[in-house]
Amino acid sequence: MSVTVACCQVELEVGSAKRNRQACLDAVAAAAADGAEIIVLPELANSGYVFADPGEARALAEPLDGPMVSALEQLAKSLRVVVVSGLCESDQQAGVLRSSAIVVDERGLRSVYRKAHLWGREPQFFRPGDQPPAVIDTRFGRLGTMVCYDLEFPEWVHGAALMGAQLLCVPTNWPAEPCPPGERSMEVVRAQAAASINRVFIACCDRAAVERGVVWVNGTVIVGPDGYPLAGPVYADRAVTITAQLELSAADDKSLGPRNDVFADRRPELYRDLPG
Amino acid sequence: MSVTVACCQVELEVGSAKRNRQACLDAVAAAAADGAEIIVLPELANSGYVFADPGEARALAEPLDGPMVSALEQLAKSLRVVVVSGLCESDQQAGVLRSSAIVVDERGLRSVYRKAHLWGREPQFFRPGDQPPAVIDTRFGRLGTMVCYDLEFPEWVHGAALMGAQLLCVPTNWPAEPCPPGERSMEVVRAQAAASINRVFIACCDRAAVERGVVWVNGTVIVGPDGYPLAGPVYADRAVTITAQLELSAADDKSLGPRNDVFADRRPELYRDLPG
Repeated sequence: MSVTVACCQVELEVGSAKRNRQACLDAVAAAAADGAEIIVLPELANSGYVFADPGEARALAEPLDGPMVSALEQLAKSLRVVVVSGLCESDQQAGVLRSSAIVVDERGLRSVYRKAHLWGREPQFFRPGDQPPAVIDTRFGRLGTMVCYDLEFPEWVHGAALMGAQLLCVPTNWPAEPCPPGERSMEVVRAQAAASINRVFIACCDRAAVERGVVWVNGTVIVGPDGYPLAGPVYADRAVTITAQLELSAADDKSLGPRNDVFADRRPELYRDLPG
Repeated sequence: MSVTVACCQVELEVGSAKRNRQACLDAVAAAAADGAEIIVLPELANSGYVFADPGEARALAEPLDGPMVSALEQLAKSLRVVVVSGLCESDQQAGVLRSSAIVVDERGLRSVYRKAHLWGREPQFFRPGDQPPAVIDTRFGRLGTMVCYDLEFPEWVHGAALMGAQLLCVPTNWPAEPCPPGERSMEVVRAQAAASINRVFIACCDRAAVERGVVWVNGTVIVGPDGYPLAGPVYADRAVTITAQLELSAADDKSLGPRNDVFADRRPELYRDLPG
């Protein structure tokens, strides 16, 4: 059984909550109309990224029953799709902000993951999560979620894969770093390596629209368990939706040729004795 | 202080011990004459790779005082260079064969590392090692060694980086896997990601010459701490030496922009609680 996965690299604008939400809803509806069943949105899709100060982040954060999640829940129900979205979350229980990834489907809000590895100025705004990647079953397959910089920590990806994630959905806001001409940006390269090392699918949804001078990689990409892109990377600073049809069960097979297996070949008893 | 690092993608032929050794010695001498100070050779550089059976592997294996290591020691002393080479090793103490990586310099044999993650048919011939990557100081900088498939296990690379390796020297024999047109082979992609995740230099020395039907990636490459190639990948089935001038001290800096650090940003306390 194959599933159609879409990543919607929407244009976001920090501070324009209503406009961002609408851009996301429109992109999800359009992707679903084109047959997408699992749809991934960027990190901080409701708020934008480049906050002027903590007050601005607080003003843009929403609880899990706020307008962004409620609207996505409603849309996921009516369209019978799964949506994974980044969320500038007001964590009411802890009284802090989180950079979260939520999953909604026809049953409503299914999981909330809080980014555990914060990047750049994010610690000024967000409290890092301390829970593992969220991994849940949906009617299309088993999904794991993490956010952006999390993907660069191999134990985190491996943990999600060990929990049975077939498709890792990764909302990102990748600020562009210098990249030599003709090279693929390292964010994408690391996603490819992570997929191939764990034999999982990875869907990274980046964002578009230069924001307060910050340029993005615009590297939205869907990678297969062999590490090669199935759609993207986009590399264009505009709203683009990429889609790929995935046989998610392929990610259950960790073999690598007739004699190797990326999980069985690991030697955790040796890793325990390594420094660090 | 910069150091010139060379990888010599020599042509090997299984069974032709004398010819393989001479090809390695010639390549090292030529690289040194061109200014190389650290010179990396492929995996199993003395024996070739595609053994017909365990008997053939045994007949080709050499102890650490055998002709291959002795000749490399002598050459390293006379040229005052560091040489890292793969070795089909007869481990006399354990009475088994090993796929090893040795380091020799003007002081003689400096380290022996035995491949811990075996690939394909290798378990028919070799006993895997159970010691961490070898990391030693040389007069050009701090070198780590591992062999081929080892590089695909993130904990292994991270362990070497934590032990202070500035340059990871990786003798490889990369059998070619299917690779979509226009894509860089996943072996190289994984080396790039490993370098960038740990902010180390990585020099992978692959081999040339189709052997008993096995085609190689020929992907010899030297990668910087940002993950981008500084020389290679070669992608040609012939003897080629690539060189790059490296400021190895750059690998001591684990920062990533003004606010991040690839080591300090890790959350090992969370990784311990992950499954696996």
